[in-house]
Amino acid sequence: MNTPIDFYFDFSSPYSYIASEWIEALAARHGRTVEWKAVMLGAVFQAAELKSPVSHPIKREYSLHDFERSARFAGVPFAIPSKFPVATQNASRVFWFLHADDPARAVAWARLCLRAYFTRGVDLGDTTALAALATEAGLEAGAAERVWTDPHWKDRLRQANDAAIAAGVFGAPFFVLDGEPFWGNDRRPQIERWLESGPF
Amino acid sequence: MNTPIDFYFDFSSPYSYIASEWIEALAARHGRTVEWKAVMLGAVFQAAELKSPVSHPIKREYSLHDFERSARFAGVPFAIPSKFPVATQNASRVFWFLHADDPARAVAWARLCLRAYFTRGVDLGDTTALAALATEAGLEAGAAERVWTDPHWKDRLRQANDAAIAAGVFGAPFFVLDGEPFWGNDRRPQIERWLESGPF
Repeated sequence: MNTPIDFYFDFSSPYSYIASEWIEALAARHGRTVEWKAVMLGAVFQAAELKSPVSHPIKREYSLHDFERSARFAGVPFAIPSKFPVATQNASRVFWFLHADDPARAVAWARLCLRAYFTRGVDLGDTTALAALATEAGLEAGAAERVWTDPHWKDRLRQANDAAIAAGVFGAPFFVLDGEPFWGNDRRPQIERWLESGPF
Repeated sequence: MNTPIDFYFDFSSPYSYIASEWIEALAARHGRTVEWKAVMLGAVFQAAELKSPVSHPIKREYSLHDFERSARFAGVPFAIPSKFPVATQNASRVFWFLHADDPARAVAWARLCLRAYFTRGVDLGDTTALAALATEAGLEAGAAERVWTDPHWKDRLRQANDAAIAAGVFGAPFFVLDGEPFWGNDRRPQIERWLESGPF
């Protein structure tokens, strides 16, 4: 019953980025694969009547500090981008476009974008910067722009958001493992125990 | 510089209860003491424009499941009370009353109430049930009732809430260790690392 681990992430979520750096190796150690699923946290938050942690007074300052500390704790390079958060629908549409033909290529795109944003501050909401990343990822000139303006891929992303909400996702990162939901980078120890010794 | 660990908790917070069962032993292993501070999450949430996790759609179902799983993960007996959450201002006022003379006795009261609520479902918001717990804790008949109706102890609890908010507290459990804030039962691994090897 080595089912894949569903991994829901948002391109502008620091905790998603941190988790993206450990989930593959952890899954592989236990003979599991990972199904990456790009979602828009905005849509997910709306369904759950939630807001970003950085849009709350008091919690905002803590969260900015905790992003950096949690990255250090996980041994992941991290620098809070000067522009944060950013719009991630275009990066997400390209993800689902690549995913249709080759999920591994979509994962490579996700890693490239997450690392560019959270280590070098590349603004994923800026179409010029995103097009440059697409070129780096091997897409033809103009291909990424055509994807993110295409109603088909806009619709594909909406479907992904709806499916996530239907699966109980209300934040990111969010994992589903053998049907069991785990929310947050900080559920790593529980996921590890589950993978090592099963349900607890 | 073995400063105490500040431990902010609410009597109706499942994650506070779980943390209350491990923080003392962990602190003691590292030569630290714990300063327990009862707060009202309602007041804290209001300042940070937040709500309880169980008052959000979708997140509610996950949270109820995660309370139980996180308790099992920590090896702590737990049963979600049939009435949840409950009003905890009276239990908190008795805490601060006992704290004025003997902080250790206030901690014993906190443990007694948290365990009664989260293992036996004793309604801490019910004055008869709370008075019975006060008797169990060795208070004279009528003493607890006099405390929670006394403007002096109402005011003491308000001061505790205001001090928590001023310290950056926006949820519970919340720890401050060498000036470093940690929010949530799930920050235990980071607190452990800090205690073992200092700032990271």
